[in-house]
Amino acid sequence: MTAEPDDSFHVFDTTLRDGAQREGINLTVADKLTIARHLDDFGVGFIEGGWPGANPRDTEFFARAAMELDLKTATLVAFGATRRAGGKAADDPQVQALLDSGAPVITLVAKSHDRHVELALRTTLEENLAMVGDTVSHLVAQGRRVFVDCEHFFDGYKANAAYATQVVRTAHEAGASVVVLCDTNGGMLPAQVQAVTGLVLADTGARLGIHAQDDTGCAVANTLAAVDAGATHVQCTANGYGERVGNSNLFPVVAALELKHGRRVLPEGALGEMTRISHAIAEVVNLPPSTHQPYVGVSAFAHKAGLHASAIKVDPDLYQHIDPEMVGNTMRMLVSDMAGRASIELKGRELGIDLGEDRELVGRVVARVKERELKGYTYEAADASFALLLQAEINGRPQRYFRTESWRVITEDRPDGTHANEATVKMWAKGERIVATAEGNGPVNALDRALLSALERIYPKLAEFALVDYKVRILEGTSGTDSTTRVLITTTDGEAEWSTVGVADNVIAASWQALDDAYAYGLLRAGLEPQE
Amino acid sequence: MTAEPDDSFHVFDTTLRDGAQREGINLTVADKLTIARHLDDFGVGFIEGGWPGANPRDTEFFARAAMELDLKTATLVAFGATRRAGGKAADDPQVQALLDSGAPVITLVAKSHDRHVELALRTTLEENLAMVGDTVSHLVAQGRRVFVDCEHFFDGYKANAAYATQVVRTAHEAGASVVVLCDTNGGMLPAQVQAVTGLVLADTGARLGIHAQDDTGCAVANTLAAVDAGATHVQCTANGYGERVGNSNLFPVVAALELKHGRRVLPEGALGEMTRISHAIAEVVNLPPSTHQPYVGVSAFAHKAGLHASAIKVDPDLYQHIDPEMVGNTMRMLVSDMAGRASIELKGRELGIDLGEDRELVGRVVARVKERELKGYTYEAADASFALLLQAEINGRPQRYFRTESWRVITEDRPDGTHANEATVKMWAKGERIVATAEGNGPVNALDRALLSALERIYPKLAEFALVDYKVRILEGTSGTDSTTRVLITTTDGEAEWSTVGVADNVIAASWQALDDAYAYGLLRAGLEPQE
Repeated sequence: MTAEPDDSFHVFDTTLRDGAQREGINLTVADKLTIARHLDDFGVGFIEGGWPGANPRDTEFFARAAMELDLKTATLVAFGATRRAGGKAADDPQVQALLDSGAPVITLVAKSHDRHVELALRTTLEENLAMVGDTVSHLVAQGRRVFVDCEHFFDGYKANAAYATQVVRTAHEAGASVVVLCDTNGGMLPAQVQAVTGLVLADTGARLGIHAQDDTGCAVANTLAAVDAGATHVQCTANGYGERVGNSNLFPVVAALELKHGRRVLPEGALGEMTRISHAIAEVVNLPPSTHQPYVGVSAFAHKAGLHASAIKVDPDLYQHIDPEMVGNTMRMLVSDMAGRASIELKGRELGIDLGEDRELVGRVVARVKERELKGYTYEAADASFALLLQAEINGRPQRYFRTESWRVITEDRPDGTHANEATVKMWAKGERIVATAEGNGPVNALDRALLSALERIYPKLAEFALVDYKVRILEGTSGTDSTTRVLITTTDGEAEWSTVGVADNVIAASWQALDDAYAYGLLRAGLEPQE
Repeated sequence: MTAEPDDSFHVFDTTLRDGAQREGINLTVADKLTIARHLDDFGVGFIEGGWPGANPRDTEFFARAAMELDLKTATLVAFGATRRAGGKAADDPQVQALLDSGAPVITLVAKSHDRHVELALRTTLEENLAMVGDTVSHLVAQGRRVFVDCEHFFDGYKANAAYATQVVRTAHEAGASVVVLCDTNGGMLPAQVQAVTGLVLADTGARLGIHAQDDTGCAVANTLAAVDAGATHVQCTANGYGERVGNSNLFPVVAALELKHGRRVLPEGALGEMTRISHAIAEVVNLPPSTHQPYVGVSAFAHKAGLHASAIKVDPDLYQHIDPEMVGNTMRMLVSDMAGRASIELKGRELGIDLGEDRELVGRVVARVKERELKGYTYEAADASFALLLQAEINGRPQRYFRTESWRVITEDRPDGTHANEATVKMWAKGERIVATAEGNGPVNALDRALLSALERIYPKLAEFALVDYKVRILEGTSGTDSTTRVLITTTDGEAEWSTVGVADNVIAASWQALDDAYAYGLLRAGLEPQE
């Protein structure tokens, strides 16, 4: 830890503890250390690492964190429970494990809902207060800073406001530096959170925090409502990971505090790293980053409507609530049939091609895009096919590296229930005719392998390409298997990804077009000279 | 439309207009009609269908809606703009197209931000007011109900409150029945929305609505904040689809109004259909339903076994903010526990089969559905495949009309650019072996025709079946053309429609399974006796 940071407002992250409760997340100790480094880079004040003693992985995390983590701004926090009923905090092994973790800050979860004390904890309301007071004062006496999470606080307040408030008061008087009001079941709405937080603050004088779950879709708003009412400590998780629907999402919360409230809660420059850090954490937990996440999603500043595009050219501020660069994101123009000249020009600029001067060329491209979109092509999700179309219009003809004479694919279901897929392609490249055959686990996979087999001697670069996504959409819902089929393919060369589109009366032919574009764009991107 | 419904609170859906702005959504007219039926089943008050006149697809939608849609609770709404500057509403072709659409309600978008009037609309502030007043009164005089969307209202109010308020007053005085305050750029937080809505209501006395975008992650809360301040009309989209991050999500908004505010805004029983309808609409737009969507996500009531598990057994209310059945969802204790007994029983009942008495049978069906869903099958959108599964469990073996020995399909791209698709099937039916070959315009179409050709002599009924929809989804996005493929097929016999599912490592084999189920269910439905 560096010199004592500003303690007036806490950004407290619990991705590693509560966030890990999300269905589908299963973190190794190495994952947790990596995420902690990202969170520290982002500049959060506190990182709750887990519950030492509750499971070996969390115990190991704190042991390794002490050795391996060199945190710049964040303080590590251990999570645990108040002592058992009828015992003493000083003799409680679970409490001792919290001290043994070496974490300078400890968050204690405490019951504050009378029914939970009776039904889940199976003790008396008085003993629960004693457990809170005893555990807090013991840990404080051992030199630790203590935060108390009042579980089910808002439901508890509704059921028995006097008791819930008494739990807060007890924690505060025993020396807890923050008492956190938790909407554990996530059922609250902002107006309720704001009212209750204000009342508890007035009643107890304790420093209050907020921990919101997203079950009503209002976790971010609930967090901000508590801040409006005087809370100065927000508990969040990266990308809103958490049990059920999830927790209050760290990124829109800090963005609102910094950009809307004008309150500095992160180190200088950190907000501009937000998009990168959000995506990096998604990679570690192995979930695809949400494309529509506020501020950091790839769609968060994507504009589709042609109506807006001309005005955006005049002044992007008219159609964006913030400058995307403030959060490390970028504006994107989607090319769709609602698009006009303005969005084609902006899209070209995005691809590094300035079309602004050549009105006639832009007109040709707009006409070509409209003509293709009428047939079912879509360029908003197929940048690489759009780039090839643009190049063809600029050069007067397509940039070609190879030409298809014909292809054939056979898919067979055998009496034993297995399938065979065999593709043959006849291609021309650099004046040479090549015939190749390959098998695959589906017809498109067989075609892909045959194409690669035909061309890789001539273009060794092709061996680096790999298909990473394949989407199929049937465009007309009224004629069943007679319909037009659109295929979108995403390809990578290990560095970048690009997407291509194919449209045909059948799924195989549409896939072939998208594959053809995918390979052609990869070669163009690699800087190779086109030649059939 | 039935008898005049309660007009005191409007649930206004704009999935078909503003929701379609979401990146990746591209709706056909048939898709829009299907979604409108789902929204009407859900009981929304208004369905905004698009902008007639702005593009041929929306014009066609209104023409077909007038013929084909028989709405129970909803009223269809056409969206459009105020008249051009310097003209007259009565002479404006865009305004005339709104009237021509035949929609009984028209939403007009109007500028209310002074800078947008000057920079985007390029007219004077006075002329903009005239455009609003003239267009509203013209449409009202033509017998239409008019809602006015004040675009960029909250940003406009911040810049020039007097002018923004004047736009509301002008619309109101010209006869608009609702004036909708729009957070078009989505940058607002609930406290601001609530304060401004309250001020405008006090200043103008107009009936107010709210249209919120989710760029701060607060669209649902912003919508509810406006309602707290007196708005009685909420504009939302199914699953929060919309431009950039999205729109205010219809489902958590109505759930909060009904379950938290205690305000009845949907017909009796509709809320219990929410999960089903959310997922069905996701299928139509061909986006995977969000697993973590509040209320309706499959994870929304999923509890990781652990701390909470035993307490949930004692009393689930302790750990859930609502009973999931209120919104048609289910509590889940296990990660793979997608299908609960209750939903199986309900689906059985839906198909006319009461499973309620036979606990053991229901258990077997639940186990079978879970096993199949683990492989990628989905029965939410494939009732006919589910009915066949149910019949197989009731009878102890599948009901079979025919059996496949093997099939083969060849797709060929010829040097002249045409495609040939030829399928051969080897089938057994009523003790007879039949080999048939057919061509089609795609491999699945060729298989479909070969199957029909093989069996129609034995089952003449088959000639009445027609495929009406065909959807493909790749289930694992990380291995390109190697992935598992799911196909959903909808078939009709001219009276009813039914949907079937197939899952396999390639699109042709998955399509074959879905075709097989489609024909088998059609024969079952026709009351024919099964016999291979």
